[in-house]
Amino acid sequence: MSNQLLKGKKGIIFGALNDQSIAWKTAEKCYEAGAEIVLTNAPVALRMGEINKLAEQCGNAPVIGCDVTSSDDIKNLLEKSIEHFGGKIDFILHSVGMSLNVRKGNHYTDLNYDWEHKTLDISAMSLHRVCQAAYQMDAINDWGSIVALTYIAAQRIFPDYNEMADAKSLLESIARSFGYHYGVRNKVRINTISQSPTMTTAGSGVKGFGGFLGYADKMSPLGNASAEDCANYCVSLFSDLTRFVTMQNLFHDGGFSSTGVTQAIIDQMEK
Amino acid sequence: MSNQLLKGKKGIIFGALNDQSIAWKTAEKCYEAGAEIVLTNAPVALRMGEINKLAEQCGNAPVIGCDVTSSDDIKNLLEKSIEHFGGKIDFILHSVGMSLNVRKGNHYTDLNYDWEHKTLDISAMSLHRVCQAAYQMDAINDWGSIVALTYIAAQRIFPDYNEMADAKSLLESIARSFGYHYGVRNKVRINTISQSPTMTTAGSGVKGFGGFLGYADKMSPLGNASAEDCANYCVSLFSDLTRFVTMQNLFHDGGFSSTGVTQAIIDQMEK
Amino acid sequence: MSNQLLKGKKGIIFGALNDQSIAWKTAEKCYEAGAEIVLTNAPVALRMGEINKLAEQCGNAPVIGCDVTSSDDIKNLLEKSIEHFGGKIDFILHSVGMSLNVRKGNHYTDLNYDWEHKTLDISAMSLHRVCQAAYQMDAINDWGSIVALTYIAAQRIFPDYNEMADAKSLLESIARSFGYHYGVRNKVRINTISQSPTMTTAGSGVKGFGGFLGYADKMSPLGNASAEDCANYCVSLFSDLTRFVTMQNLFHDGGFSSTGVTQAIIDQMEK
Amino acid sequence: MSNQLLKGKKGIIFGALNDQSIAWKTAEKCYEAGAEIVLTNAPVALRMGEINKLAEQCGNAPVIGCDVTSSDDIKNLLEKSIEHFGGKIDFILHSVGMSLNVRKGNHYTDLNYDWEHKTLDISAMSLHRVCQAAYQMDAINDWGSIVALTYIAAQRIFPDYNEMADAKSLLESIARSFGYHYGVRNKVRINTISQSPTMTTAGSGVKGFGGFLGYADKMSPLGNASAEDCANYCVSLFSDLTRFVTMQNLFHDGGFSSTGVTQAIIDQMEK
Repeated sequence: MSNQLLKGKKGIIFGALNDQSIAWKTAEKCYEAGAEIVLTNAPVALRMGEINKLAEQCGNAPVIGCDVTSSDDIKNLLEKSIEHFGGKIDFILHSVGMSLNVRKGNHYTDLNYDWEHKTLDISAMSLHRVCQAAYQMDAINDWGSIVALTYIAAQRIFPDYNEMADAKSLLESIARSFGYHYGVRNKVRINTISQSPTMTTAGSGVKGFGGFLGYADKMSPLGNASAEDCANYCVSLFSDLTRFVTMQNLFHDGGFSSTGVTQAIIDQMEK
Repeated sequence: MSNQLLKGKKGIIFGALNDQSIAWKTAEKCYEAGAEIVLTNAPVALRMGEINKLAEQCGNAPVIGCDVTSSDDIKNLLEKSIEHFGGKIDFILHSVGMSLNVRKGNHYTDLNYDWEHKTLDISAMSLHRVCQAAYQMDAINDWGSIVALTYIAAQRIFPDYNEMADAKSLLESIARSFGYHYGVRNKVRINTISQSPTMTTAGSGVKGFGGFLGYADKMSPLGNASAEDCANYCVSLFSDLTRFVTMQNLFHDGGFSSTGVTQAIIDQMEK
Repeated sequence: MSNQLLKGKKGIIFGALNDQSIAWKTAEKCYEAGAEIVLTNAPVALRMGEINKLAEQCGNAPVIGCDVTSSDDIKNLLEKSIEHFGGKIDFILHSVGMSLNVRKGNHYTDLNYDWEHKTLDISAMSLHRVCQAAYQMDAINDWGSIVALTYIAAQRIFPDYNEMADAKSLLESIARSFGYHYGVRNKVRINTISQSPTMTTAGSGVKGFGGFLGYADKMSPLGNASAEDCANYCVSLFSDLTRFVTMQNLFHDGGFSSTGVTQAIIDQMEK
Repeated sequence: MSNQLLKGKKGIIFGALNDQSIAWKTAEKCYEAGAEIVLTNAPVALRMGEINKLAEQCGNAPVIGCDVTSSDDIKNLLEKSIEHFGGKIDFILHSVGMSLNVRKGNHYTDLNYDWEHKTLDISAMSLHRVCQAAYQMDAINDWGSIVALTYIAAQRIFPDYNEMADAKSLLESIARSFGYHYGVRNKVRINTISQSPTMTTAGSGVKGFGGFLGYADKMSPLGNASAEDCANYCVSLFSDLTRFVTMQNLFHDGGFSSTGVTQAIIDQMEK
């Protein structure tokens, strides 16, 4: 599909680690749809080097390192991007999350609170930092669009998702809160996409993730949405077709969120 | 924008009364985006004749009368459409609603129940009828998309909206319920768009609607979404960019639904 | 527990069929808590005669037949109750529901619409009828409380729950809508309790209900709530401890509604 | 009302500052209902000394200082309480919140992130700390109940509520997440009450709070719920009448949350 839906638009994509990443697919789809993009990730992630392949595919997009817990790094990223684009930004994808307590195997009932602060800082407050820097620099064109990726664990408990559930709740609230202020001043919309569990590098770090993917797939009338489908959805949310959708948490999950049980699960239960 | 996002797709649009209708704008936008369409409305509405102008604009789209409370009429519409298209249908817009109790000025605490049955039949069960007929005739291509228009009164009370609030709740539930079954069998998705109050012929029938429009506009960070914006959103939901969004109620309202109060309202309250 | 929490209060209980009914348990608990009650059910249900046993247990409570689709019957019930109590009513439990399409085994994609009208009339519009009659007769004391029983299928699809899901959505909307008007005029609150699946006569009519009960139990951190627990919750909602809770759908389900998956389900899936 | 609903139960009340506090009223109501209690607050708040009057009224309840950002303080509080009660705890009220950014007058688009970490730590993570300490010490009896106070800004934006909205979202998520684990192991339930704006010392610190109180009152069919009403509701949630309600956010707001607009607001808008 070469719909040119984003022709003339300029965006920043956070979090493309490798070709399984939702951010990676989104960068590809945005580029296909006519957008110019800047890629960014944490310096440590950039060192793996895979992102350069993506940058090449996307018309030699600049790759700019950015630690999302540093307001200075974020300002630098925005400045460099505006310089590169020769104008303000139209869209941003926030696909960032990390939980030290999950990595270290701490159960939800045995959290290390210093680590939880880090989790909240990287996974949720980072969205506020990006928005605040952009707002103060007036870096985004009117009717711009910001999307952050989240998960339904923010509403319903999935025990292995651990403290990331709470971080995602915070993230979704920040999207709403900042969406109000940025909407009033610049018509910029901010939404979160609550995506099916996806077999990315981040996802695969969660305990028992493989089995859980199968469960979610069986519980979704359309099956799990893939990273590529999510990228398509992001394109629609960056386009002018969705200019009045803001401060929403949008489920992109094949119907999982509105399904209490499926016949496939009932059959499995009876085995 | 000539994005050709719906190129090759075929759809049926219910409810285009005149050029203020959301359905009218949606037909235009779908046609612009490359779709072929069939227009339909109640026989009594067709007699006004304005729809023929729209049909002409949309490549001489057929106009087929259909009383949505008649399963026979719906089957006839689907058959004729498939015949015209030379193939199955890809998308349907359900923009239908009518409340006799509202028209007759009955307060919510003084409803006539025969009329309420009519309201529910026309405004909500009609979606089930359309889905059921299509499902039984296997009239929709895999990955097809059905959208019905609704209003936030289904979740929060707006006193003058009266029994239509309850009808919209029923409509949204039917979208979820049928979305499950049609999703499992044919990957067909069904969603509702919860749209800002809009100055259409239907909207303007509600008591005190003008003042209410102003209130909603002040309570929405982006202001009220127009009929044209809603049409754009419909295009995105009929396109392949949103294939895994199903069984959702999607707010297209400039942020109204996520706003508790705005500075503009507070200022007004202090007058 | 003889907490006397409802001392001096007078209430009407709809829908006590036999000692498995939630309504039956609620009548018992209300009586224990010091309330005077009137029992009612459809004439055909009364003919089974079991309710007389309950009436005896509850201080020889009057049993008054009432077809909830008849406004006259409802008015008669309210008049007789007020006469019996020597004053207005303080609380009402609406525990009424019936689906002909479910009974006759019609799949959700093959509904008979005449029957659906009956389902909506009995299961949802009946609440409006009761509220409207009471409102017009001014039959309820200020700060009175009305509770209707519902199920989470109104929000998420459980395929076998069929059209009752849509009826429950309508019921919940009516509770909100009427709650607004009755709240403004008389401070009367109206809420719905969304109860765990319960092994009542009504529940057991649903296909595959036994297996489903087990699933819900495993998916609820506290397990399924019993009819007796639900009766206790009703007492709290009829009492003066909850005077400012209104227009809410209250989950009484051991946490099911906020649980995405449990370890018990994951274990079962891996078998 | 001396309902003795909490007879034999033992609870800890956080956050009673003065006789306008919801926590203060809750302590009184719990004591009236037959409970034994321990009072706690931050050491700096205790120094004001008013709490001793409350302690006296509540049968000379112990007052134990506790900085909720210190796990050691929390453990000490739990140990001392168990020692005092001669047994485990049955209920806890968490009424704790503080925002440095609000205090210092920082706009939401100009947050200091070190202060935001403090806000999240005190206002939200503190609930996790209390739950985690209690869970690890096995300090709560089976079927115990924990309630935390929150506000609807967690769902919808009220601009002046600022970063506290995000903190409350995090708090509500923690209640759900920990509710799962504590429910599975000990049947302990954890809920949040989303209370009307209340003229407490904390509330009165928010800019323009007086005018906002009036707005909320006009937007609530029953008017704003008072601190005393909230205390009554807490009693119901600590009692055995609500044992299967868990992981819920419960609106205690006179219907505000389910109201889109009221006639009173429309009248005001037209002035």
